[in-house]
Amino acid sequence: MSARPWDVYLSGEIHTDWRDRIAKGIADAELPVTLTGPVLDHAASDDCGVDILGPEEKKYWKDRKGAGINAIRTRTLIEEADVVVVRFGPKYRQWNAAFDAGFAAAMGTPLVTLHDEDLDHALKEVDAAAAATAREPEQVVRILEYVMGGSA
Amino acid sequence: MSARPWDVYLSGEIHTDWRDRIAKGIADAELPVTLTGPVLDHAASDDCGVDILGPEEKKYWKDRKGAGINAIRTRTLIEEADVVVVRFGPKYRQWNAAFDAGFAAAMGTPLVTLHDEDLDHALKEVDAAAAATAREPEQVVRILEYVMGGSA
Amino acid sequence: MSARPWDVYLSGEIHTDWRDRIAKGIADAELPVTLTGPVLDHAASDDCGVDILGPEEKKYWKDRKGAGINAIRTRTLIEEADVVVVRFGPKYRQWNAAFDAGFAAAMGTPLVTLHDEDLDHALKEVDAAAAATAREPEQVVRILEYVMGGSA
Amino acid sequence: MSARPWDVYLSGEIHTDWRDRIAKGIADAELPVTLTGPVLDHAASDDCGVDILGPEEKKYWKDRKGAGINAIRTRTLIEEADVVVVRFGPKYRQWNAAFDAGFAAAMGTPLVTLHDEDLDHALKEVDAAAAATAREPEQVVRILEYVMGGSA
Amino acid sequence: MSARPWDVYLSGEIHTDWRDRIAKGIADAELPVTLTGPVLDHAASDDCGVDILGPEEKKYWKDRKGAGINAIRTRTLIEEADVVVVRFGPKYRQWNAAFDAGFAAAMGTPLVTLHDEDLDHALKEVDAAAAATAREPEQVVRILEYVMGGSA
Amino acid sequence: MSARPWDVYLSGEIHTDWRDRIAKGIADAELPVTLTGPVLDHAASDDCGVDILGPEEKKYWKDRKGAGINAIRTRTLIEEADVVVVRFGPKYRQWNAAFDAGFAAAMGTPLVTLHDEDLDHALKEVDAAAAATAREPEQVVRILEYVMGGSA
Amino acid sequence: MSARPWDVYLSGEIHTDWRDRIAKGIADAELPVTLTGPVLDHAASDDCGVDILGPEEKKYWKDRKGAGINAIRTRTLIEEADVVVVRFGPKYRQWNAAFDAGFAAAMGTPLVTLHDEDLDHALKEVDAAAAATAREPEQVVRILEYVMGGSA
Amino acid sequence: MSARPWDVYLSGEIHTDWRDRIAKGIADAELPVTLTGPVLDHAASDDCGVDILGPEEKKYWKDRKGAGINAIRTRTLIEEADVVVVRFGPKYRQWNAAFDAGFAAAMGTPLVTLHDEDLDHALKEVDAAAAATAREPEQVVRILEYVMGGSA
Repeated sequence: MSARPWDVYLSGEIHTDWRDRIAKGIADAELPVTLTGPVLDHAASDDCGVDILGPEEKKYWKDRKGAGINAIRTRTLIEEADVVVVRFGPKYRQWNAAFDAGFAAAMGTPLVTLHDEDLDHALKEVDAAAAATAREPEQVVRILEYVMGGSA
Repeated sequence: MSARPWDVYLSGEIHTDWRDRIAKGIADAELPVTLTGPVLDHAASDDCGVDILGPEEKKYWKDRKGAGINAIRTRTLIEEADVVVVRFGPKYRQWNAAFDAGFAAAMGTPLVTLHDEDLDHALKEVDAAAAATAREPEQVVRILEYVMGGSA
Repeated sequence: MSARPWDVYLSGEIHTDWRDRIAKGIADAELPVTLTGPVLDHAASDDCGVDILGPEEKKYWKDRKGAGINAIRTRTLIEEADVVVVRFGPKYRQWNAAFDAGFAAAMGTPLVTLHDEDLDHALKEVDAAAAATAREPEQVVRILEYVMGGSA
Repeated sequence: MSARPWDVYLSGEIHTDWRDRIAKGIADAELPVTLTGPVLDHAASDDCGVDILGPEEKKYWKDRKGAGINAIRTRTLIEEADVVVVRFGPKYRQWNAAFDAGFAAAMGTPLVTLHDEDLDHALKEVDAAAAATAREPEQVVRILEYVMGGSA
Repeated sequence: MSARPWDVYLSGEIHTDWRDRIAKGIADAELPVTLTGPVLDHAASDDCGVDILGPEEKKYWKDRKGAGINAIRTRTLIEEADVVVVRFGPKYRQWNAAFDAGFAAAMGTPLVTLHDEDLDHALKEVDAAAAATAREPEQVVRILEYVMGGSA
Repeated sequence: MSARPWDVYLSGEIHTDWRDRIAKGIADAELPVTLTGPVLDHAASDDCGVDILGPEEKKYWKDRKGAGINAIRTRTLIEEADVVVVRFGPKYRQWNAAFDAGFAAAMGTPLVTLHDEDLDHALKEVDAAAAATAREPEQVVRILEYVMGGSA
Repeated sequence: MSARPWDVYLSGEIHTDWRDRIAKGIADAELPVTLTGPVLDHAASDDCGVDILGPEEKKYWKDRKGAGINAIRTRTLIEEADVVVVRFGPKYRQWNAAFDAGFAAAMGTPLVTLHDEDLDHALKEVDAAAAATAREPEQVVRILEYVMGGSA
Repeated sequence: MSARPWDVYLSGEIHTDWRDRIAKGIADAELPVTLTGPVLDHAASDDCGVDILGPEEKKYWKDRKGAGINAIRTRTLIEEADVVVVRFGPKYRQWNAAFDAGFAAAMGTPLVTLHDEDLDHALKEVDAAAAATAREPEQVVRILEYVMGGSA
């Protein structure tokens, strides 16, 4: 009744293997899910603007050029996602992840947050906009398996 | 001229065989309809939140966790449905069915209600927002057959 | 900083004094709130269709006529409300209240539910879409006082 | 030609006097601006959920209750703002500020970011969605003065 | 509780006094209603294009010029109306009235149709999109009085 | 560069062979167009409501029932059409055709009208909302051929 | 019946007195129109970015900074305008005027173009999206007078 | 992870080979991109209105007829594009290109501008709405390659 494929956008932390664990869980469960997300090659993501469009002396404009190009990808994929999963980790400030969460919330796209308990208070506004808060990537897989099929 | 497949979301009562009767009618008529709906395994639906995300002492939060996850499925499928059929039965208060009807109405998605005559007065606001009120599941099938093909 | 007036739509149960208690609380707190809602004169609400547009033999069409007219009011006021409060009581099935909640949720209008704890399980989908679940009308007033001004 | 009043929402950091400096600048320039924003009383903002709706043992649900109520205010005011100004400071992770920025961006509301240069790289996605990045609150006032009137 | 003013757009037939009767009823009932509608001076409406923008040899372009200008008025006023009333009379084909009804329906604006019973079959699609079908202008006034105030 | 298939909704007059002529032209030109439209079996279209959902004594409600079911088809197909073609003929008042034109215009869907010159004045508002006014079905085919491919 | 005030945005050419002539005509006719538009002080408009936010070595970024700030004003005012008037003159390429026209067209805001006949061919796409093409500012005033009041 | 096909609309200048260079680059990189755009046969584009719908004496109406038909194509393809690339060249005023850019910006579709540096100042409003400004067609290809795949 629900062989419908789902598009799931994975936003946020790029320093741990949470994306791989979700991908593995989806493969193991044989779910018809297309995972999308930002470009994960950190250097490419930082440098794409000046690499493609030419150098900048000021870092601010280097960043602006790169972020503009990255936004073509991220906005397009977030807008067509059925679910947006946003991972917050212990390091860095990850404002782009929270920005993506706000963007998804404004569009009415279901949001799943993924983070440890010690970040709960700092993330309370984001979690309040989420359909679920998971602690482990495998829980995200189980949520997808459930909503796509029906057995928890 | 209309081999176009239709997505039909079936919301509401889970204690009678109305979904099966609609599915059978669609199969018999060989209509290219994809039926969708909420998770019908009552226990799974109630427990998915705590099963996947961990236990809660308070029943309110157990319910909230489960309802959050179920909403990922129901909102996504209702938003992409061509028609939403909402069944009201004699038992229970079925507020989620009426909630789905309101949600579909706000999005401009055609709504078909399915209920006995003795519920007419209680459902008058919902029926007024509906394209049709059917009494039997087979009438829903005939409506789909007609709108998809042209012969009543 | 927030003398902005708020429009608050009160939907649902019409057999207890919850609307009066909210109105009194707002008056006592001198909040710049405009309370709106459906026509509360039960007979007028049921009969407006046939009273204005002429009699019907079938009750279904009498109801349809009345519900159509009532919807002119309710949709218009719900669409412009800043907050929709939906009250569920122990009696009747109050499907129109849940319908209004679904309508508000689809439009992204903040929703506050108001009901006793024994209805929690039956209302879990509606509550999951709500910004808050209150037990007493005075809590609704305190929520409004807080969001409009800043002191809880 | 532009005596039109503007609504400006101030989101983010609550530990420095940037809001006061913007308010003072607006008063000095006699601009017809209504400043709005979240509840700034930190304790009230954290506790409003349990204060109004009753205590919770788990901090996660205490936060959820409070964040739900705060969202009634913040979403409503952000949605009607003409401009959203988001301030990021050196301390804390301020995910709610970035969430607000994403929400405003998705709605097409003009965004002004306000932060020091050392945060530029971490905020590059947010800045790329902004109409302007200011370093000092007084620059925000000058931007408003300019767009509302015409003389820089 | 409902001193809120309502904007009501009156579309359709221009050869009988139905607009006057609605205006009189509203004045008598002292309802805070602003009535809007197309330009009623038939010659001015037909000729505004060529009068203002210069003559045309072909009637088609004369009509196009006039209709373009009239649309500035009608679209703007229909878009901000709370209720659109569309009157169909026995003469002429009044396609612009049905066009306005379709426009209002697509925008989710409540629609009231006003016509005699002998036009019911020809207008069945339009009536099915309407909240109510009235036979006399005074019924429209009573509907407004009811939805604005609460007494039928 | 444009093998993209197009959905074209054909609304209006059902007494001449204009739909067949468009279908033939599309077949001859081998255009990847899916033609959709209302149910063309006049009796089925009139009776579908009472045939499926049970008889009505009053013709008004018979019509309402049928029109509600037909609207499930027409709204769904109009909403997904790339182009809406509306044909007005010399007989009948064809208010549903003008209603469809208004609905399409409000949704921003390109509209092509098809009618003889003697109807120009009566249709001036509808034509002013149209991308083109054709006189013959074959012109509609040529428009589609041009916009889909590039050679007039 | 139409004392409603209108917001009219004037976009485009800044080297002739067309804005003054429209303003004078509106004053003479005592129309309740609020005229809005971009900042007309050319130097201020070019320099606002670097004046407020600090200098740039590259002209591209100087322009970007200024255009970002100007867009806060222009988007906000265009979005709330009832009518957008766009003037094209014989000199300069005035891409921002055509950009504003496209923006208004996408939002469904009525558009009036104002230009000489020798620009007709170059502006044919823009004119086709417009409700009217005027040659003289006084014609714009007459259009407003007509749509706001009823006498051409 | 991103084998998703992208629709890219190419708007603007028709006198140089920039479209061919983008098409070649996409073919060389084997990107799953569908390129769309306006009809490029200049004479056909100018004459399609009168060729299909009959001659006009006034050039203004000849242009209007053609532009109406062309808009069926351009609006439909721009609305479904993932990215809109707009090229401005040294000759002609290319108002339709800027119009398309404004239309895309209003819809939130990512925009890439393509032009030489000497046009920067004249295009500053358009560039400020763009995700990126490229100088060479090959840079557009690299942007697409990057956002679709991840390696710059």
